[in-house]
Amino acid sequence: MVEKRTPIPVKEAVKKVMDYKVEGNIEFVSILHSNNRFLAQDLTATSDVPHFDRSPYDGFAVRSIDTQTASLSNEIEFEVVDHIGAGFVSEKQIGPFQAVRIMTGAQIPEDCDAVVMLELAKAYEKNGRNYMSIKRSYQPGDNVSFKGEDAKTGDALVEKGTKINPGIQAILATFGYAEVPVVKKPLVGLFATGTELLEVEDELQPGKIRNSNSTMLAAQIERAGAEVKYFGKLPDEFDTCYEAVKSAVNEVDMLITTGGVSVGDFDYLPAIYEKMKAEVLFNKVAMRPGSVTTVAQLDGKLLFGLSGNPSACYVGFELFTRPIIRHMLYSKKPHLRKEKAILKADFPKANPFTRFVRATVSIENGKLVTSPSGVDKSNIVMSLAGANALMLLPGGTRGYGIDDEVDVFMLEDFVGSEWPW
Amino acid sequence: MVEKRTPIPVKEAVKKVMDYKVEGNIEFVSILHSNNRFLAQDLTATSDVPHFDRSPYDGFAVRSIDTQTASLSNEIEFEVVDHIGAGFVSEKQIGPFQAVRIMTGAQIPEDCDAVVMLELAKAYEKNGRNYMSIKRSYQPGDNVSFKGEDAKTGDALVEKGTKINPGIQAILATFGYAEVPVVKKPLVGLFATGTELLEVEDELQPGKIRNSNSTMLAAQIERAGAEVKYFGKLPDEFDTCYEAVKSAVNEVDMLITTGGVSVGDFDYLPAIYEKMKAEVLFNKVAMRPGSVTTVAQLDGKLLFGLSGNPSACYVGFELFTRPIIRHMLYSKKPHLRKEKAILKADFPKANPFTRFVRATVSIENGKLVTSPSGVDKSNIVMSLAGANALMLLPGGTRGYGIDDEVDVFMLEDFVGSEWPW
Repeated sequence: MVEKRTPIPVKEAVKKVMDYKVEGNIEFVSILHSNNRFLAQDLTATSDVPHFDRSPYDGFAVRSIDTQTASLSNEIEFEVVDHIGAGFVSEKQIGPFQAVRIMTGAQIPEDCDAVVMLELAKAYEKNGRNYMSIKRSYQPGDNVSFKGEDAKTGDALVEKGTKINPGIQAILATFGYAEVPVVKKPLVGLFATGTELLEVEDELQPGKIRNSNSTMLAAQIERAGAEVKYFGKLPDEFDTCYEAVKSAVNEVDMLITTGGVSVGDFDYLPAIYEKMKAEVLFNKVAMRPGSVTTVAQLDGKLLFGLSGNPSACYVGFELFTRPIIRHMLYSKKPHLRKEKAILKADFPKANPFTRFVRATVSIENGKLVTSPSGVDKSNIVMSLAGANALMLLPGGTRGYGIDDEVDVFMLEDFVGSEWPW
Repeated sequence: MVEKRTPIPVKEAVKKVMDYKVEGNIEFVSILHSNNRFLAQDLTATSDVPHFDRSPYDGFAVRSIDTQTASLSNEIEFEVVDHIGAGFVSEKQIGPFQAVRIMTGAQIPEDCDAVVMLELAKAYEKNGRNYMSIKRSYQPGDNVSFKGEDAKTGDALVEKGTKINPGIQAILATFGYAEVPVVKKPLVGLFATGTELLEVEDELQPGKIRNSNSTMLAAQIERAGAEVKYFGKLPDEFDTCYEAVKSAVNEVDMLITTGGVSVGDFDYLPAIYEKMKAEVLFNKVAMRPGSVTTVAQLDGKLLFGLSGNPSACYVGFELFTRPIIRHMLYSKKPHLRKEKAILKADFPKANPFTRFVRATVSIENGKLVTSPSGVDKSNIVMSLAGANALMLLPGGTRGYGIDDEVDVFMLEDFVGSEWPW
């Protein structure tokens, strides 16, 4: 009646899952809808930036040769023969001791090679004509932003797999990427199983609880960069679950179920996987929470059987499902970002298991510090709210105390780790 | 012709803006659409969790009194008289030396007060009836998750102003928040001004550049938690700009324009503000980039005149507009989060101005380190792509070098600072 399961180390379990990683597909979306998506191609400069010699200041474009003798005691006068704003190009030919009033961002007239800042020139009118005078000399190129100074056509700008942020939006616009190549969001199917589950809007009933894993996982799936397809909740009935899972798996890139994976009589997922002829990669992991996480593959498609326990479910997703999603989104660092932090709490009791403790990482004087984000019981949903990290406490013969250095896995992060195990 | 402007310190400028902060309105959205929104009310527990005594394990519920004499040499036998899964409640009365097969999460039968884990019991059949036996004793409460153990009705769970994350989604579901009180997204109007601006899809033309500020700002506005209403771009013509700005301001919570704020002949924003009878709070800030940032208020509504220069625009938004948005979203720490980081680059030249350098903050051995994210020229859009922070380099008589400690303002963050200046 009780199935014997052999737990495998976390590292090995993650490796088994990653053997089935695949890359996502490319699609083009309007730049207006590209924010927070992941680039599917390297971005390169489609033109020089600036693509013309431009003035970085308001002032006067001059021929530097005409300024050579200017000094405090030798003011040089220029006739201002044109006046151009950003977006306009002077059509005038500029001769000796002539200048052009020029605005920030405007193109430097062809005959000019330096810009006098407005505040360093004295402007005045004489006989209905405009003049300005200066008291210092300029070298060719002074106050000129040269064509190609910031980027040259073909320059590599941003690597594929990068999440599009405001700065990348500016780059996309600058180089005319009106349609942006992004990775199609992986579609992650989601079932909650358990006869004890009520809908969020239901009144509580004896013995039953509201389904909290589905909205939580939906948010985790979204945070990882994928899209969720929620199939609803399933009762603890083998045939219903089998038919539902079998049919859903064809509609998605990967399928998550919650619950039904421990060793109780009503935990059907292992039997469902068997009947589907899916290969179970592992059904027990040497960690807490989440030890009963089961992952299977069917024709290369991954089936994540996460625990019905909220904390175990949360951790199982972040360790096993997230890297598959992030790899699909072309990330070279698909795993949770691992950093070192100083522990600000005591865990005096030795514990034989590798533990992932929901934790808050903050910064004190430039150093990462961490403490558990709530009482550490795997059934406490409250500790998840403040968690921005998972603290790794390896199992062993000793506890952990204040000022110990521990590994933390950052949850609200888009940098990631290549292989943190 | 050249207007004289007196720069004010950043701190003072931010303070002047914050004098016009207001709180946003509440709205209720389905839990399914609440992710990443900001809570408009404190969340409290609407019930105990668990709301019944529950079994944290698969096993057998027993009366602990019946186990007192159990030991390795004295195996005690129980008749298993019921079998309940999670979501079901046993209706049986449990007498001496009777037990109930119980699943993880199920309600403990009323007469029982301890749970024997499945792996510690020997289960068998005898004469068509179910039995199990144990070899150790149990105390009342052993392996029972008590009603209210995790949370009690009325407990404060999450503060208003908090961004909803996966953990909070779990809490919302657990406590039946099918409709979630969130802050209505502030609506931020956006104009780009400048005759030099092309649309993203346009071919480049001499003297003209594509409008990169609008998509960049739209992404910044979204990152801050607000919604953008993009009104398009405006040519450098006073009347057109005046009419457009005057009419747009009524439709939004605040209005951003980019460009038109420096001291050139075509920089109309100051004159537009004057004609609108808006009060200019400042028109020059002692910082680089972004010194020409102009902010005005009209009947308490803020008008942000950001620089047309991408980097200056970016910085101006993060320092001045973002805290107004975050305050509107009920954040008690609306400003960019300030931390200390170790500099990994040299800035040998002294600079008289307070500088905000686009920077990448990363972590080395648990310590924040920072280096500029690109060549530091204010017109270089490329340096914005890798920026996850702004490095603050106070102006003065010395440069900065490797291993100096500097302040950094974190951009991809939802913690914030109460007052970092």
